[in-house]
Parts: sequence; C-alpha cells; structure tokens
Amino acid sequence: MIRVNENYLKLQAGYLFPEISRRVSAFAGENPKANIIRMGIGDVTEPLVPAVVEAMHKAVDEMGDRATLKGYGPEQGYDFLRQAILDNDYKSRGVDLALDEIFVSDGSKCDTGNIQEVFGLDNTIAVTDPVYPVYVDTNVMAGRTGTPLTNGQYGGIVYMPCTPSNQFVPQFPSEPVDLIYLCYPNNPTGAVATKEQLSRWVDYARKNQAVILFDAAYETYISDPSIPHSIYEVPGARQVAIEFRSFSKTAGFTGLRCAFAVVPKDVVAYAKDGKAVRVNPLWNRRHCTKFNGASYISQAAAAAVYTADGKTQSRRIIDLYMTNAAIIRQSLSKLGYEVYGGINAPYVWITTKNRMGSWEFFDLLLRKIHVVATPGAGFGLAGEGFMRLSAFNRPEKVKEAMERFSTL
Amino acid sequence: MIRVNENYLKLQAGYLFPEISRRVSAFAGENPKANIIRMGIGDVTEPLVPAVVEAMHKAVDEMGDRATLKGYGPEQGYDFLRQAILDNDYKSRGVDLALDEIFVSDGSKCDTGNIQEVFGLDNTIAVTDPVYPVYVDTNVMAGRTGTPLTNGQYGGIVYMPCTPSNQFVPQFPSEPVDLIYLCYPNNPTGAVATKEQLSRWVDYARKNQAVILFDAAYETYISDPSIPHSIYEVPGARQVAIEFRSFSKTAGFTGLRCAFAVVPKDVVAYAKDGKAVRVNPLWNRRHCTKFNGASYISQAAAAAVYTADGKTQSRRIIDLYMTNAAIIRQSLSKLGYEVYGGINAPYVWITTKNRMGSWEFFDLLLRKIHVVATPGAGFGLAGEGFMRLSAFNRPEKVKEAMERFSTL
Repeated sequence: MIRVNENYLKLQAGYLFPEISRRVSAFAGENPKANIIRMGIGDVTEPLVPAVVEAMHKAVDEMGDRATLKGYGPEQGYDFLRQAILDNDYKSRGVDLALDEIFVSDGSKCDTGNIQEVFGLDNTIAVTDPVYPVYVDTNVMAGRTGTPLTNGQYGGIVYMPCTPSNQFVPQFPSEPVDLIYLCYPNNPTGAVATKEQLSRWVDYARKNQAVILFDAAYETYISDPSIPHSIYEVPGARQVAIEFRSFSKTAGFTGLRCAFAVVPKDVVAYAKDGKAVRVNPLWNRRHCTKFNGASYISQAAAAAVYTADGKTQSRRIIDLYMTNAAIIRQSLSKLGYEVYGGINAPYVWITTKNRMGSWEFFDLLLRKIHVVATPGAGFGLAGEGFMRLSAFNRPEKVKEAMERFSTL
Repeated sequence: MIRVNENYLKLQAGYLFPEISRRVSAFAGENPKANIIRMGIGDVTEPLVPAVVEAMHKAVDEMGDRATLKGYGPEQGYDFLRQAILDNDYKSRGVDLALDEIFVSDGSKCDTGNIQEVFGLDNTIAVTDPVYPVYVDTNVMAGRTGTPLTNGQYGGIVYMPCTPSNQFVPQFPSEPVDLIYLCYPNNPTGAVATKEQLSRWVDYARKNQAVILFDAAYETYISDPSIPHSIYEVPGARQVAIEFRSFSKTAGFTGLRCAFAVVPKDVVAYAKDGKAVRVNPLWNRRHCTKFNGASYISQAAAAAVYTADGKTQSRRIIDLYMTNAAIIRQSLSKLGYEVYGGINAPYVWITTKNRMGSWEFFDLLLRKIHVVATPGAGFGLAGEGFMRLSAFNRPEKVKEAMERFSTL
C-alpha cells in the first residue's frame, strides 16, 4: 500500500507567500477598484537591463540556428558563466575558488531547499528567528524535525532569535548543532553581519564540526564597504561554509531563473564510521541526477550582468531600489514606527502599529490603505509584531504608500 | 558533528551520461582529429522552430519593458501554458483534467527525480530493467533501497526485466510493490505499451493500492494510432497514476528547460493511521517550497509549440528524427544486429556485436569507428549485451555512422 511521506503532514498552513497571495486575491476580487500597492513579496519591478535583453536576443537566435543550437548544457552551468562569477564576485574580493566549486542553478530557493539532501537526517539544524521559511519547511519535509509545537515552531530545530534587543545578532546555540542557516544581508530583517561576526561563526563551525549554509542572495545591496559580501572573505570559511547567490535580486531575474551555489572542496561531512566525506562531489552527484542545468538563455543573460554595460545598468536599478528603502525608512521613522534594515538590504523591518499582531496588521494595511506588506510572524515567532516592507517598487508607488501610512 | 547522507555513499559509479561524456572527452583529447558521431545521449540536433524563436524574442522584449515585465510567476506555471497543455495534449484525446492538476517545471528529470519525496521511505519501488537511471538513483539517495548487490542492482528494489524473450512487456511483480515507474514510449528500449497493457497496470495499481509514475516524455514519437499517448486514456488511471511530459524531445527544448507533471486530484497515498491523503496538494506544497517556476521565456516558448505554426514546424522535425530511426533500423538489421524500437520512439535498441559486453562494445565503437552509443548495461542488468542508439541527429551523420558500422 502506497504510503505518504508523513513529514509533509507536519507542515503548517501554506507556504508564506502563496498565503499572502491568496488573501490579496480575495481582497482584490471583492474590491476590484482598490489600487493595491504591493510591498509584500520581494519581487522586482524594474525591467531587465538593455545589456541583458541584448544578450538574450542573441541567445534566442543561437537557439534557432543549427550551427549554434545549445542542447543539454553541463548540469553545473556553462564555463563562460562560472568563470565570470569567479572573476567578478570572488577574485575581485580576494577570494580564490575553482570552477568546479560553482554550481549554476535555476534559483536560490531550489538550492537552499535542496542542499539539505546531501546531509544525514540525524543532523540538528539551527536557524535564525525570523527566518526565510524555505530553510525550515524543507527540513520538515525531509524529516529532520519533530511535530509543530503550540507556538508554531517545530520540535528538534534550534531557533536563534534576532530582535532589536540583541541588535539582530543571534547568540550561539547552547546545544550542539550541525547545520546552520545564515542569511546576510538578512531576509527579512535587513540586518548585515560584520566580518568579525562571520569570523566567530566560522570558528564556531570549525570547532563543532558544523556546516554553515550562507545565503548571500542580497549581497549586491551592501553599501557599507566594511561589510563582507561573501563568507569566504573570512579565513577558514572554505572548510565549513556553502554559499548561495542569485541573479534574482542582483539583476531582476525573478522571472528568468538563474542562481548559483558555491560548494568548496574542503567542506566535509562525516559518515557513521567517522570518515570525512567531501560534500562537493555529493552535491555534484545530486545536481547531475536531479537537475539538467539552467536554461541557456538565462545563463547567457546572467553572463551579460557581468559586462561593463551590464554592471553600470544594474547598479542604476539597485540604486533606485535603495532610494526607495531610504524613503521608507525616513517616512516610517517619522510616523513613529521602529525601523530596521534598508541600508545594506532591500528590506525594511518595522514594528506594527501599536504592536498589534503581524497578520492583524497585514489585514489592516490591506483593507484600510490597500498596501501589501509581509507579516513578520510569517518568518517565525520572533517576527511577531513586525512587518517586512520590500524596496522593490516604483519610487512613486513607494511615496504613495508612505502617504497612505500617514493616514493610519 | 555534521553527518553525511549515508545513502549517497551507496550510489555506484557516476550517473550514466556524465560517465559517457567523460570517456568521450578523454578519447577526443587523445584523438583531436577523430570525427566523432554522437548517438549516445538523447540530445536534439535540430534548432528551435521559427514559431518558438519568434515567441521567445517577444518574451525577451516583454522582460525588457516595465509594463510587461514578468517577475515571479505562479510556481505551477502560467495559466496560458497550462490551458494549452490541457486543450492540446489531453482534451484532444478525450482526457479531462483540471488546470490545477498540471504542474509546469524545468524538466522531467527534475520531476521524475523529485516526485518520490512526497511518498514515505517505507514504500517498495518497482522499475523495469533496463530503466532510466534517474528513477533508481533518486530512490537510492532518499534511502528507499539497500546497498548495491554484486550484480549492480540495489537491494529492496523490484526489477522487472524487459527483454526480447518477453517482447519487452514486464511481468507483474510477484511481491507487493507501492510505487511503479513506467516509461512509454520506453527509454531506452523504444518499446510501447498498448492500451490493454496499460489497463492491466492500472487494474494492478488499483487492486494493490499502488501508484504508477508514468513517464511519457516521448509520446510525440508514437506513430501507431492505436497506442495511447497518455495513461489517462485508460479508464481509472486518474485514481492511481501521475504522468510526466516534457518539451525537450517534443520540441527540442533540452537547452531551454520546460516540462510538466500531471497529478490528478484523485491520486492518494496512505498515512500510518490508514487515512487517505491526496497527493496533489502535497506535490503543490513541494513545488511552491522548493521551486520558483520555470523561466517565463521557456514557458512562452512552450506555449508557441501549441500554435498551428508551432505544431507544423515541430512535426517536420519529429519526422526527420523518425526517418533517422528507420535508417538505423534498416541498416543494422541488414548487418545482422537484432534491432528493437525506433518505430514509435526515437531510440533504437540493438544487440551488441557477438553479444560482447555493452561497455566493451561502447569502447570498440568509440575507438574503432568513432561512434558514441549508450551502453545498455548503463540502464540495468537486463540491458547488458545491448546498446541504445539515438535518432536525434542529422540524417547525413546517421548515414555516415551506419556506413562505419558496416566496416566493423
């Protein structure tokens, strides 16, 4: 008799963003004339830059010509893109990586969701709270957690609260953990980690034979030159850290799908007989067995992001989004909200009005001022009483949204 | 201490196609002047058709314009594509499906590899032998099998041999099985299943509360009008079958990445308490949590395959490949090889020369006549002594390869 994966039955409610989408659709259906401003899901609003568009047209023509058609590519990505990544994202910051440590994929959601597969089910995972729900849910599905507790957390996961009272810097877990998810610049709080803070995490992982899963999807939004863009800027990190990057937020690829993971050959995990097993070939095996490479057109587009034109054009868009973030910060501070993030990250993390519940405030914002924000509680227990506002929007819409906030 | 997923350590050698690629690269490196003809990996050689190229250029332009930019799409795929799939692939053959039973993805390798996740680890899987390696390897990785036996098979999997002696029609397993992988038209043997044969599988699954995973990636190559293209043409299949389709072989999308899975709402799996749980919402949850939709450009391209021009143009290419298959069949039959498949499938399955081992014959073909074929043994024990030849090639290359065969 066919058995279900019982772990799926532990999952609570819907995944956060579909749930938001459901509520917004329902409201829009009942109020077809409402001019809704979406600051919820972190989706880009600016079109792909000309350098990328041009590269894609060229790639499309190549696919229409027998002489230049690209069929199955290397599962790990084309070397032209992997080399551009190495040179531009790493060598330029003093980080040496090899080509076969880069795995191009169709998204960081997929990579951060799938990476846990190569590790045993008996590992204890640690996540910050609030946290990007994918890290938690994929471990629930795999069976690495217990059942949900009454507070919404899962048994067996170590949660590390990040709140204003600790300046969003999590404490090291008091119990041993094996797999640590870190995201800097942080989604959802917009906090960043200094080199010293990351160094301490690397030391912790080395001492405890743990592995750090470092999600750097928002590194391009860092404005402070002292903040590291990659965990590999910290000595020793290539023994214990796997890094995730994406073109989604860097270059507006949310609809195109291209990202990559860095799995250094020095990262190991241990077998029951105590033998150290390199993770890089395991991930390579997974990648080749369950994935067939990112679209050639998306990879050609990604490579164009690294051209001189691509860089200049992309930077202009990042600057626009960060101007939005500054507007949100200023406006909401003035209105009396506590405001965090939005300086080195495209997310602003605010307290709710009168400290009401996050979903209650979500509904209030939607119904009263027709603004969609993401409930902090959707990211975890410590997110209750907060909202995430995304800077991905048109400046005029952001200004309009801020005016509407002033009427609340 | 971070623990490895020990199941990965059970995996044998490399995944088949990277291993072939490794051997071919090594040979090409040593023999840079060898004019190698690749009939191994099933990759297309004909460019994308004009209707698809045109749709992609349009989609690229949309992505470069703020008014028409597509960011994150629905994880399950755009309705314009799902509707085209429903109408053209199913309604046209008398099969009624709902839009939310279609899940667009970036490839059937991913779908057939990932689907096992929603089922418990205590299920027994059954596969034909020979078989597409992804079905087996992904279950090994998940921990649904034992260690490899000396014959290369894995403990805990039920293998159903398909050989000339049973006309490639597998017998029903004598022991109970829960998850049955079927692929028709078959990769690698090129065999097809009649409606009556599929009916018997559906009856078997219903009687045994099993689920059939039906890989129909090659359905477009069916020339015999009596052969079903979808398992849902069999009454009762929507209670027990999940179907996989791809644009890779239908329309040359191997480098573009677009496919879909059909998960009817009637398919259930059982929880330990005996409760029947619908699989559709579980797969939806997995899809939304670990995947962010296929590239908009690939989806726009896929929709163009269903236009009148797209259909005519694609059919011409299918016909070209099937002419190749006929040439292979005729030539090798004349040379004394036993020849199977290649009539309703783009693969021809032949015996090796003098019944030598598959990998031995692989090396002989590569070194002596510079032709790459896929060793049958790479698909399983019952594939030993066979080779798979792919019809995806230029006709002149196929003819040249056949001439070279005659010199062996």
